[in-house]
Amino acid sequence: MQRSQGNSTVGFIGLGVMGKSMAGHLLKAGYPLIVYNRTKAKARELLGEGAVWADSADELAVKCQVIITMIGNPKDVEAIYFGTEGLIENAQEGTYLIDMTTSSPKLAVQIGQAAKAKGLYAIDAPVSGGEGGARAASLTIMAGGDEAAFNAVLPILKQMGNNIVLQGPCGAGQHTKMCNQIAVAASMLGVCEAMAYAKKSVLDPKRVLQSIETGTAGSWVMSNLAPRMLVGDFSPGFHIKHFIKDMRIALESAEAMGLETPALKTALKLYQELADQGEGDSGTLALFKSYCRC
Amino acid sequence: MQRSQGNSTVGFIGLGVMGKSMAGHLLKAGYPLIVYNRTKAKARELLGEGAVWADSADELAVKCQVIITMIGNPKDVEAIYFGTEGLIENAQEGTYLIDMTTSSPKLAVQIGQAAKAKGLYAIDAPVSGGEGGARAASLTIMAGGDEAAFNAVLPILKQMGNNIVLQGPCGAGQHTKMCNQIAVAASMLGVCEAMAYAKKSVLDPKRVLQSIETGTAGSWVMSNLAPRMLVGDFSPGFHIKHFIKDMRIALESAEAMGLETPALKTALKLYQELADQGEGDSGTLALFKSYCRC
Repeated sequence: MQRSQGNSTVGFIGLGVMGKSMAGHLLKAGYPLIVYNRTKAKARELLGEGAVWADSADELAVKCQVIITMIGNPKDVEAIYFGTEGLIENAQEGTYLIDMTTSSPKLAVQIGQAAKAKGLYAIDAPVSGGEGGARAASLTIMAGGDEAAFNAVLPILKQMGNNIVLQGPCGAGQHTKMCNQIAVAASMLGVCEAMAYAKKSVLDPKRVLQSIETGTAGSWVMSNLAPRMLVGDFSPGFHIKHFIKDMRIALESAEAMGLETPALKTALKLYQELADQGEGDSGTLALFKSYCRC
Repeated sequence: MQRSQGNSTVGFIGLGVMGKSMAGHLLKAGYPLIVYNRTKAKARELLGEGAVWADSADELAVKCQVIITMIGNPKDVEAIYFGTEGLIENAQEGTYLIDMTTSSPKLAVQIGQAAKAKGLYAIDAPVSGGEGGARAASLTIMAGGDEAAFNAVLPILKQMGNNIVLQGPCGAGQHTKMCNQIAVAASMLGVCEAMAYAKKSVLDPKRVLQSIETGTAGSWVMSNLAPRMLVGDFSPGFHIKHFIKDMRIALESAEAMGLETPALKTALKLYQELADQGEGDSGTLALFKSYCRC
């Protein structure tokens, strides 16, 4: 039966920088919280605050009415959801499975079908807003799944984000995140090209921003990342290696639809070159280095 | 002698959609205005409001203390400024020559040098903000030239724009406009790719905008042009044929500096294909058609 999940025990799998903050908000909101993570040490703070440890995903699965996953990549998601020790096999009937990892739309559809066959409700709900958004509970959450299931878990999602939209059936959340990453990838190219042009010509790039950031050329990337690029601060908000993972999913998905995405392809190629040069752990704004080397 | 140009007679050459509005603001502000345009009919309204007609650029040149040009492309600019009938040959010593056309930075430097040799002050001051910005006198004006000359004509520029920055010596205004166009070109690619992806997948592109336009993927292009693309409104704010002209200047200029600009190149190629298909007079947002044909 679908109902509000106000008193549900929530399971949270994946306590990286994002997941730790997100799970913490649920705990503060009063949800009984069971956590599992590959590295137990990352759970220490949450356990101190009242979360309960599970030794495995299947142990967690049997005890929770809502299970959230926020893990590395589609391969990890697949491993957690499928197989005899997976969530789908072990969750109780009626459980809500919310994958907040940025992962493959195709996999989200597969999880949705497998979940439905077992009487479970699957929702893909990737986020944008980064570490800051996770800490501030101001994430954008892009959801895919049945409307009734979405409404049932909405109070839980609201603990973590403030722009929460059901985009369509299972997979639609991941597809929406891909739209986001495609637009970000092109913005990164444009801002780096424009700033590199400024730097190579007679201009003061910071002064150029005064002229162009409020008009047609303006973007979140320009206003927020260009100033950091220009002072050589390439510390990660979002890691290049993760962006590459996302762009690969987007490209694969676009190709499956027969859609040409030349800007995405260009960005992926340049980022892959950076990763090959050891920049995988740098922030995405290190793309500026590629341009300045020309 | 450099002084405030409050009572100067201003000459305005180029009364297209942009120039007509811009010249009109000067007239309303009380500047004596002499106008010249290839097609006289376009001057009718301004002449009715008190502007004086000149039959040629050189006739205008001898009568004005400030001359503004807002014309088609670098070739036209070159023709108006150089030669025996050009502004540089015919303007009185101490005249300010302000080219507001989006034109070549290299040409702006040449004009600056030629002007200086004749005791004239050249300023390149291309704009962004389009027809709406010209009408509302809210243009962004990116200037290049000597600081004293810039300050002298600033009261005049303020009649037409509200974000007016001196970016550096002659050519710096044009270079800054190129930075702007490079960033816009990439934004166009990103927004079209993201919206085409949305359309081809299970998504409702308008709902996707709700999720992504306020975050890291957000841009002026996304907020202002994507909604129009999605309803098939490709009417021009800015014509494809003019954008191609700007991108060619940017690419030529980048290549001269040894800077690779893959996103700019991709955008120019796609826009050139559209122009070849007869879309030169469509708005730049018609790029979306290229993606939807895939």
